[in-house]
Amino acid sequence: MFFKQFYDQHLSQSSYLVGCQRTGEAIVIDPKRDIREYIEVAEAEGLIITHAAETHIHADFASGIRDIAAKLKTRIYVSGEGDDTLGYKNMPDGTIFVKDNDEIHVGNVSLKVIHTPGHTPESVSFLLIDKGGGSSVPMGLFSGDFLFVGDVGRPDLLEKAVQVSGSTEIGAKQMYQSIQEITALPDYIQIWPGHGAGSPCGKSLGAVPMSTLGYEKINNWAFQALDEATFITVLTTDQPEPPHHFAQMKKINQYGSDYFKPYIVYPAEDIALQTFDIRTRSAYHGGHQHGTVNIPFDKNFINQIGWYLDYDQPINLVGDNQTVQDAAHVLQLIGFDIVKGYVKPGDEVISQHVHSKDITGEEKNVLDVRNESEWNQGHLKQAVHIPHGKLLEREVPFDTNEPVFVHCQSGVRSSIAIGLLEKKGFRNIINVKEGYKDIKKDL
Amino acid sequence: MFFKQFYDQHLSQSSYLVGCQRTGEAIVIDPKRDIREYIEVAEAEGLIITHAAETHIHADFASGIRDIAAKLKTRIYVSGEGDDTLGYKNMPDGTIFVKDNDEIHVGNVSLKVIHTPGHTPESVSFLLIDKGGGSSVPMGLFSGDFLFVGDVGRPDLLEKAVQVSGSTEIGAKQMYQSIQEITALPDYIQIWPGHGAGSPCGKSLGAVPMSTLGYEKINNWAFQALDEATFITVLTTDQPEPPHHFAQMKKINQYGSDYFKPYIVYPAEDIALQTFDIRTRSAYHGGHQHGTVNIPFDKNFINQIGWYLDYDQPINLVGDNQTVQDAAHVLQLIGFDIVKGYVKPGDEVISQHVHSKDITGEEKNVLDVRNESEWNQGHLKQAVHIPHGKLLEREVPFDTNEPVFVHCQSGVRSSIAIGLLEKKGFRNIINVKEGYKDIKKDL
Amino acid sequence: MFFKQFYDQHLSQSSYLVGCQRTGEAIVIDPKRDIREYIEVAEAEGLIITHAAETHIHADFASGIRDIAAKLKTRIYVSGEGDDTLGYKNMPDGTIFVKDNDEIHVGNVSLKVIHTPGHTPESVSFLLIDKGGGSSVPMGLFSGDFLFVGDVGRPDLLEKAVQVSGSTEIGAKQMYQSIQEITALPDYIQIWPGHGAGSPCGKSLGAVPMSTLGYEKINNWAFQALDEATFITVLTTDQPEPPHHFAQMKKINQYGSDYFKPYIVYPAEDIALQTFDIRTRSAYHGGHQHGTVNIPFDKNFINQIGWYLDYDQPINLVGDNQTVQDAAHVLQLIGFDIVKGYVKPGDEVISQHVHSKDITGEEKNVLDVRNESEWNQGHLKQAVHIPHGKLLEREVPFDTNEPVFVHCQSGVRSSIAIGLLEKKGFRNIINVKEGYKDIKKDL
Amino acid sequence: MFFKQFYDQHLSQSSYLVGCQRTGEAIVIDPKRDIREYIEVAEAEGLIITHAAETHIHADFASGIRDIAAKLKTRIYVSGEGDDTLGYKNMPDGTIFVKDNDEIHVGNVSLKVIHTPGHTPESVSFLLIDKGGGSSVPMGLFSGDFLFVGDVGRPDLLEKAVQVSGSTEIGAKQMYQSIQEITALPDYIQIWPGHGAGSPCGKSLGAVPMSTLGYEKINNWAFQALDEATFITVLTTDQPEPPHHFAQMKKINQYGSDYFKPYIVYPAEDIALQTFDIRTRSAYHGGHQHGTVNIPFDKNFINQIGWYLDYDQPINLVGDNQTVQDAAHVLQLIGFDIVKGYVKPGDEVISQHVHSKDITGEEKNVLDVRNESEWNQGHLKQAVHIPHGKLLEREVPFDTNEPVFVHCQSGVRSSIAIGLLEKKGFRNIINVKEGYKDIKKDL
Repeated sequence: MFFKQFYDQHLSQSSYLVGCQRTGEAIVIDPKRDIREYIEVAEAEGLIITHAAETHIHADFASGIRDIAAKLKTRIYVSGEGDDTLGYKNMPDGTIFVKDNDEIHVGNVSLKVIHTPGHTPESVSFLLIDKGGGSSVPMGLFSGDFLFVGDVGRPDLLEKAVQVSGSTEIGAKQMYQSIQEITALPDYIQIWPGHGAGSPCGKSLGAVPMSTLGYEKINNWAFQALDEATFITVLTTDQPEPPHHFAQMKKINQYGSDYFKPYIVYPAEDIALQTFDIRTRSAYHGGHQHGTVNIPFDKNFINQIGWYLDYDQPINLVGDNQTVQDAAHVLQLIGFDIVKGYVKPGDEVISQHVHSKDITGEEKNVLDVRNESEWNQGHLKQAVHIPHGKLLEREVPFDTNEPVFVHCQSGVRSSIAIGLLEKKGFRNIINVKEGYKDIKKDL
Repeated sequence: MFFKQFYDQHLSQSSYLVGCQRTGEAIVIDPKRDIREYIEVAEAEGLIITHAAETHIHADFASGIRDIAAKLKTRIYVSGEGDDTLGYKNMPDGTIFVKDNDEIHVGNVSLKVIHTPGHTPESVSFLLIDKGGGSSVPMGLFSGDFLFVGDVGRPDLLEKAVQVSGSTEIGAKQMYQSIQEITALPDYIQIWPGHGAGSPCGKSLGAVPMSTLGYEKINNWAFQALDEATFITVLTTDQPEPPHHFAQMKKINQYGSDYFKPYIVYPAEDIALQTFDIRTRSAYHGGHQHGTVNIPFDKNFINQIGWYLDYDQPINLVGDNQTVQDAAHVLQLIGFDIVKGYVKPGDEVISQHVHSKDITGEEKNVLDVRNESEWNQGHLKQAVHIPHGKLLEREVPFDTNEPVFVHCQSGVRSSIAIGLLEKKGFRNIINVKEGYKDIKKDL
Repeated sequence: MFFKQFYDQHLSQSSYLVGCQRTGEAIVIDPKRDIREYIEVAEAEGLIITHAAETHIHADFASGIRDIAAKLKTRIYVSGEGDDTLGYKNMPDGTIFVKDNDEIHVGNVSLKVIHTPGHTPESVSFLLIDKGGGSSVPMGLFSGDFLFVGDVGRPDLLEKAVQVSGSTEIGAKQMYQSIQEITALPDYIQIWPGHGAGSPCGKSLGAVPMSTLGYEKINNWAFQALDEATFITVLTTDQPEPPHHFAQMKKINQYGSDYFKPYIVYPAEDIALQTFDIRTRSAYHGGHQHGTVNIPFDKNFINQIGWYLDYDQPINLVGDNQTVQDAAHVLQLIGFDIVKGYVKPGDEVISQHVHSKDITGEEKNVLDVRNESEWNQGHLKQAVHIPHGKLLEREVPFDTNEPVFVHCQSGVRSSIAIGLLEKKGFRNIINVKEGYKDIKKDL
Repeated sequence: MFFKQFYDQHLSQSSYLVGCQRTGEAIVIDPKRDIREYIEVAEAEGLIITHAAETHIHADFASGIRDIAAKLKTRIYVSGEGDDTLGYKNMPDGTIFVKDNDEIHVGNVSLKVIHTPGHTPESVSFLLIDKGGGSSVPMGLFSGDFLFVGDVGRPDLLEKAVQVSGSTEIGAKQMYQSIQEITALPDYIQIWPGHGAGSPCGKSLGAVPMSTLGYEKINNWAFQALDEATFITVLTTDQPEPPHHFAQMKKINQYGSDYFKPYIVYPAEDIALQTFDIRTRSAYHGGHQHGTVNIPFDKNFINQIGWYLDYDQPINLVGDNQTVQDAAHVLQLIGFDIVKGYVKPGDEVISQHVHSKDITGEEKNVLDVRNESEWNQGHLKQAVHIPHGKLLEREVPFDTNEPVFVHCQSGVRSSIAIGLLEKKGFRNIINVKEGYKDIKKDL
């Protein structure tokens, strides 16, 4: 049996290629929208991708399940569990809707479907048995967003991102039940999760790419002997606010969307569009065009820019040509295909700074852009609190002609806030460079 | 904790980077000679490589343990177990020679040393505990060439490649003992081996990159309840002949060698050198220069070319410029730094073929270049047997003016044999295209 | 003034970027359909592409003039000379149709239009004066397909490729006149032609990328003191047959077509399509799939494959993934956007060969696939003549069960013929390896 | 005949490959130290590099003439003209020292040597005749640093960079004479110069890559009817100060040096080394490590960093890994092979700025780092003048605790000065952002 994990840094997402070397067949689990890397690896191994499956309707990236069906004519398998109104729509002819206990056969490899709701009602996991390798016991579990290394999937996305009222509570109960049931499986099976550290699909995912069930039973909080109510409380508390684009992802993945097609970003014609500067933070602070918002093209790019994308509104990107093309491609992985133009860096505005340690506590007009839980753990008394992801839509209650001090926890999100404040007309914005963490705590 | 496996296709080898995100420190396990990829990943993760360790003196590739020490000033850890005469020599000042039960600390990650002889006398494994992640139980075992997915390391290399008389028997007994001892560890730990499918360091390695101890206990032959004698017999039977370069690797890795430096292969000046044609088999058969030997630059390149390299003799390579540069770099991973020139493909010789199904059994001058065990399982009655790796040194007992039929099992090794026979002066070589597998079995 | 020539190896085509550094404006002359390289260079030089112009309606590649207008909103200039029915149609709003003596201003650079018909009726050249550089005399002439290094444009394409009856004679007369008129320009001006060696837009283009008028007056046959009738005879004699795709190019470039968009070639679903094997000749001969036609992806790729493309019929390509993607992109430069799939090399057929020197003259069934003029200069007496570009449409008058010997001049085109003959059902095709050039001449 | 110009952006340097397609031979003119691109192009054209020649002992980049001789066993040709003490030393055996009127034959291409002193005493040019193309008249002149597009080579480098006293005057006279003599050649020949715009080997080189003699006679100042004395005055006035590394280049190219070998830059161990930050200016200003000097890796990189390199002192570079490797390679083209380490960007210092328009004229401690001629054309009355290239060696007469205003003409060189001033202990450095050009002129 051939096995390969594909880890996408921008999405903190894992997909998998599993092949039966005797029959030359292979399956992709949880494919992304651009399926080229699966094809290349399969080809190098002498395998043909004949099957594809996904564990659930993803909320954080654009699924490639319909793409792979259309482009490679594979058999595709999606969950037929859960409430029909929340299930898959417009799937290609021939899609197989699997239920608990069904089996998928890829040559001599078998994948048994286990319904593991909680993150979403239809979520399934796939338990792999390498029969071609001579085994009759399971080797591992493709656990999707049910079970992560060190965490479990959050149950609140449907409610927060798609407004399915009451679904958080239901999901949390289901998750409790799914966890109890999975403990019956042997300790030695590998856990192959759908996400790694940095994913907003949970709150404390580990940076180890895979685990084992036995290890999780000992170390993962969800397997500790909590009663159901406590479990639900822990699970539903302090989940980060889901980025704005999650709603769109759910829609795309439930109903389908355009197939992935590469495209080229040409020099911008319309400079009035929402424009993101994807250079490093220091490059932006050293000189940027007024009103552009700095989202550096690093591992947090998608998580950050997801807050500000309107899927009906084209955008421009500021950066060097190649980085812009790369960033536009990564945006396609969350289904956003309308980067209209790229813009060469301007340097009209040089950011103003104050070091956190020089904050006296006497400053007027302090804006705190951290999230709810950070704010709750302590803040400057005179600060106004607007989480960075809400800045576009909320009013900032300061005079645009006065100096405004903006801070977050460590300096990342306040840098983003600068451009947003510029767009709102503020003329004198001072970035508190090291953020709240270095502000004297007795102010 | 950060964890990444690096799998090298050409060496079928796994090395690992493990980092403690709290302290920013990282360790490389079993580094290759070109350490750039470890640096790049560490950097992207915000880690500094501060430690490096290796599980044993490798026989199949050039270790990077001395390179990483010299270039990154890391602390390095190698085995201090086993017979001193077979142990590490000329290690850098400050090298730490670890023994059973020692611990290596990399930030909050701890690696406990377990002496697991068998493949070699000094072989150790490292049992990882992610203390920074809050765990007090082991997560996994870096098992080097002791334990693979589906197999264990072969004990016969010292005897076959370095002529340490009697060492096979001793190693096999040690392996039996090591296996018994390791069974005490929990089923749920991950097994992170030193090699994958295709490696000649064992005979039946799986193509799954990692496993768990519990899974191996059930599925790996070595954990089945065999008595010691049977275990030794199974372990020492039918091990493939080690490629010629293994002897050199042992020497390099035990005593040290030049540090890795990139170099450029320029057009060949001296066309009298041993010359390998690294194009595809069909390109070679469609037209090649007389006396050049076809070793296509694919996943088997190192395993095949290793048979024919003399580390004191520069070679030329035939192929397009970029592929030759790539191949020269891969050869550096087995410590071979003297590709002198590249040669553009000639087409003076077009290979002659006969399809296996057209072999009548009446052919004279049939050369079978398969290995011992293949020959023993059946062969043409009139065939002469010289394994392909011995062709350079042995005499071929045919008239060089007569037609010679050459075959292997499936057509790969007979293609190599063509050039070797041309060098020996044969003028009329007929490749049996599909090999012995498609020759009628009643001849 | 900034000046850069872009030479496309596959099209043997030159395009140009000229910029005025004072105003930051730039013009592209004769852009290709994929305009990225112009943008990248302009950007690196701090220039904005504000203008684009073309010398004539190209017959050999897909013009990018409409693409550059749409994507960069440049002002575009095309010829308004010549017969209207043969002129540009469906041009974007704002297109400027230039006539003899018009001037185009790009910052301080001026381009004077000179009507230079002959290759086509509307052909113009642009005479550049670098006023920004302080000069009042011309620096050079963008001569399009009017004047090449060592040759002039052929006048017969409209007649041969688009069936404009009588246009060859008219064009040849116009060319004579254009040459006479251009001699009035100073010797020292540079000649910046539209094509280089290998282009089928003339018959003897040099491999030097640019020249001067004075040098051409001395060395180019067209400037020697020939009377008009002799000039016309020389010009219209022995022009190579235009590849099949020229007709399509004329149509696309006269009437417009889809804009360039990149796309991905996925593994082939439909293996019944016309399939080209783009590997090297020796790789093809060493093993190929029956009925696939070998057009190696080298500098002659476009000239060769152009003979066999039907713009309504998708094709497959055989080769490694990356080379197929590259080849598909190059085909987009001649407006062909429907490579449906790629196919991994098969090896069912190994080509049969005979060396030219072993041809006895007694062979039956000899097929000569050279062009008309080669045939006329000598051929085997028993040979049947069908130029390789006509093989698909003409019947081959041999028994498909008998051996067929196929030859060209040097072995390139006969290799192509093999697959075409396989498609026609021939089972025993023998390639005359070195072609007619090495066949004994007294047979 | 095949002809290709290679233009190196970093060196503003042109080298050439010329081949005779009939014999397959080729020559490189003025090769750089890394000869790979010549080999790749020659190979793609089916040519073998059999000859190499250079026009003079270069002062601005490390010649590849000895490398090409050693690596490709080509015949090499250098000037045997001029004063022997200033001529080539330690040339490889078999080097041909050419004199005026000698001819070099490369297949059917001939290169006639013309002694054209002025830039240096031994400078020669090569007049090409394409005999294989049927011509008996010259096609063009490889004019090295004798004749540029729009300018001639400066005669003062030997005196300024290598302290050959009186050589400027002698060179200027020789240049006058060389110009007179070259006018006898026909107007129509192409001029293929050794440098383009941005090169410090002249003062007003054009950005057009080639010209013709006739065009230069009209437009190049050097061909206007000046008497000798005026010519000398114009030629020797306002030549820019030669960068510091020119002295080293002269030595390397006269006496020889190590052959080019690629190397890898690993993370820096010794952070006390001179360290250059090669990121963009805005990235540096937005946050940099104290005392690092900003030389962005753009087209001016070599010209700027050349001022600060000590060839005996290793350096570190700040930037992303790939850009540092690229920059280290480019430094090898000027013979600097000791980039010891790369350093990840720090952000401890954020640059302070004042806009030029806000300069009142009342500022104390103003440092003007422009060159002599800029200073002479006007400056702030209170400014102290130290050209940026001299800042390391000269004392800055201000109190290191007081604010220091630093400006150049447009903001590029003052950015470099910031790091230099930090190294000198200044703590409060204010960059005058837009430079002198935007300072009010009545201050």
